[in-house]
Amino acid sequence: MSFDRLIEKIARTNNPTVAGLDPKLDYVPNYIKEKAFEKYGETLKGASKALLWFNKGLIDALCDIVPAVKPQAAYYEMYGYSGLKTLYKTQEYARKKGMYVITDAKRNDIGTTMEAYAVGHLGKVRVGAEEYEPFLGDALTVNGYLGSDGINPVIKVCKQYDKGMFVLAKTSNPSSGELQDMKIGDRTVYEVMGDMCEEWGKELSGKYGYSGVGIVAGATYPEQIEILRKRLPHTFFLIPGYGAQGASAKDIAAAFDKNGLGGIVNSSRGIMCAYQKEKCDEKDYAGSARREAVRMRDEIMSFVNRVQI
Amino acid sequence: MSFDRLIEKIARTNNPTVAGLDPKLDYVPNYIKEKAFEKYGETLKGASKALLWFNKGLIDALCDIVPAVKPQAAYYEMYGYSGLKTLYKTQEYARKKGMYVITDAKRNDIGTTMEAYAVGHLGKVRVGAEEYEPFLGDALTVNGYLGSDGINPVIKVCKQYDKGMFVLAKTSNPSSGELQDMKIGDRTVYEVMGDMCEEWGKELSGKYGYSGVGIVAGATYPEQIEILRKRLPHTFFLIPGYGAQGASAKDIAAAFDKNGLGGIVNSSRGIMCAYQKEKCDEKDYAGSARREAVRMRDEIMSFVNRVQI
Repeated sequence: MSFDRLIEKIARTNNPTVAGLDPKLDYVPNYIKEKAFEKYGETLKGASKALLWFNKGLIDALCDIVPAVKPQAAYYEMYGYSGLKTLYKTQEYARKKGMYVITDAKRNDIGTTMEAYAVGHLGKVRVGAEEYEPFLGDALTVNGYLGSDGINPVIKVCKQYDKGMFVLAKTSNPSSGELQDMKIGDRTVYEVMGDMCEEWGKELSGKYGYSGVGIVAGATYPEQIEILRKRLPHTFFLIPGYGAQGASAKDIAAAFDKNGLGGIVNSSRGIMCAYQKEKCDEKDYAGSARREAVRMRDEIMSFVNRVQI
Repeated sequence: MSFDRLIEKIARTNNPTVAGLDPKLDYVPNYIKEKAFEKYGETLKGASKALLWFNKGLIDALCDIVPAVKPQAAYYEMYGYSGLKTLYKTQEYARKKGMYVITDAKRNDIGTTMEAYAVGHLGKVRVGAEEYEPFLGDALTVNGYLGSDGINPVIKVCKQYDKGMFVLAKTSNPSSGELQDMKIGDRTVYEVMGDMCEEWGKELSGKYGYSGVGIVAGATYPEQIEILRKRLPHTFFLIPGYGAQGASAKDIAAAFDKNGLGGIVNSSRGIMCAYQKEKCDEKDYAGSARREAVRMRDEIMSFVNRVQI
C-alpha cells in the first residue's frame, strides 16, 4: 500500500517527474505509422500498433532516468478495444523496464461498481480457478465527487495489492474553479476534497510519511498547491500542467518537503512531442524525449531539494 | 443532438426505463459460463464471451419492450481488453436490435483529452483515410467536477454525431451527500452542478423540450429529484437506485412531466438477476428478465402519465 514503491523509484533516479503517455496518432512519427499501416492497414488495430511501438521507444529511452509513466486512458479508448490492448501492452512493457505505472483514468463510481474498476486497473480478477491482472497500473487516478462510497472500494484493493490512488482536488484547467474554488463554509471545494483525502489516507499510511491516497493538484495553480501542502502533510501530489499547459518548475516547488518528497510532476506533450519542437529527425524522437526529460528533471531539481529517503 | 431519439423510443414502448447491463460473472447462468470456458478456457476471453452471450440473451428478451440499455463500463474493464471487446459487441447488438445505448462510464477530463473520450464513446476517429466508431454509445455519463473544460468537448462531439450526455448531479449512493449536499451560498453542490447542466444544455436543445445534457439523479433521494425537476425544466434525468438500491416507483414520480417525459429509470441487478430471485430454471434467465422488466414498467407507469410526444 501507499506510495513507498513510487518514492523509492523517485529517490533512485533523483527525479520527481512522470512521463505522460497520451499518444495521439498525430504525435507518432510517420515512419512508425507507415510501418503499422502497411502491416495492419489503416484500421483501429493499425493505429493501436503504431501507438504501442511509439510508447515502447519512449519507455526504452526514459526508463533509467524517469521513475514513472502515466498513460492517459482516453487516448487508448479512442482507438476502441484494440487501443485498450495497447494500454495493457504499454503498462506491461513499462513494468518490465522497472517503471511505476500511474493509470490516468479518473474513474469514479460506487460500491461493487467502483470495486470492479479498482480490480480492473489495480488488482486481479478471478475467472473460474484462475486469476488475471486485467490492466497493470500501480496507481489509478480517481474522481471523488461521489464521496467515500467511491473511494473505499479502491482503498480495499490498494491494501490487498500494494497499490495507490490519486484523487482529483484542484485540477490544472482554466475552468477548474467553476466548482472547485466555490466556498463551502470557510473552505473551498478543493480543500474539502483534499481534507477527505488526508483522512482516507490513514487507511494506507506509508513509511516515508505519505499515504497511498494522493491528490491531483495542477501546477497552473501554485498558490493552491501551497495551501494544499500545508493542509495535507501526508498526501502525495500528482502535478499536471507543467510545460504545455504553461506552468514552470518554480510553480511546483511548494509541493515538496525538505527531503525533495511530496509530489511528482507530469509532462506529456513536452516529452512525447519533443522531436517536433526540436525539429530533429523523427527517427530520433526517443532521443529527443530523453533530452527533454533530462532538461525537465534538472529544471525541477533546481527548485527542489535532493531526493532523500 | 439532444435526447430526441431516446424520447421517441420511450414513447414507442410507453416505458421510461433502461436495463442496466452490469454483468458480473456471478450473475451469468452456469450453462453459459460452462460453454464459454469449454471453448475459450478459464481466461479473460472466456469470461468476456460468457458476458457477451448473457447480454445478447437479455437484449433479445427486452428489445421490443425496453427502449434502452445502459452497459456499465467498469464490469467490462474488469476483464481487460477482452472485456472491452464485449462492451463493443454488446453495444453493436443492442443498436442492431433498435435499442438506445447509454454508456455508463462517468468519464471526465479536460480539453483534447476529454474530446478523446467523447470521440471514443460517441463519435468517430480518423485513421489515415478511414473513419471508425471505437465504441457505440448514443449517450455517455460524465462527471463534471472539472467544470466546463470537461463538458464543452463532449457537447462538440454530441452536436457533430447527434448524441447526448448525463452529468452526475445527485448520485444514488449513501455517501453522495459528503460533497454533493454541501452548501455553496444558498445552493447545494448538486444544485450548482444541475444549474450548470441546464445552462450547458442550451447548446443541445431538443424538439420535445429536453436538451442533450441530462443529469444523473438517484431514485434514493426523492426530495432532491423534486427540487432538481423544478430548477431544471429542460434537463432529462437518468435515475439509478430503483430496486436493488432500495427506491420504489413512487420515489421517481416527481422527475416526470404531464406527458410522462423527463426521465429514464435504470434497473440493473433487478433485471439481470431476476432468474435468481424468481428461482426459475437458469436457462429461462432472459424470460425472467423480461417478466421483471414488464413488472417494473407497469409499476412505474402507475405513477407516471402515459408517454406522449
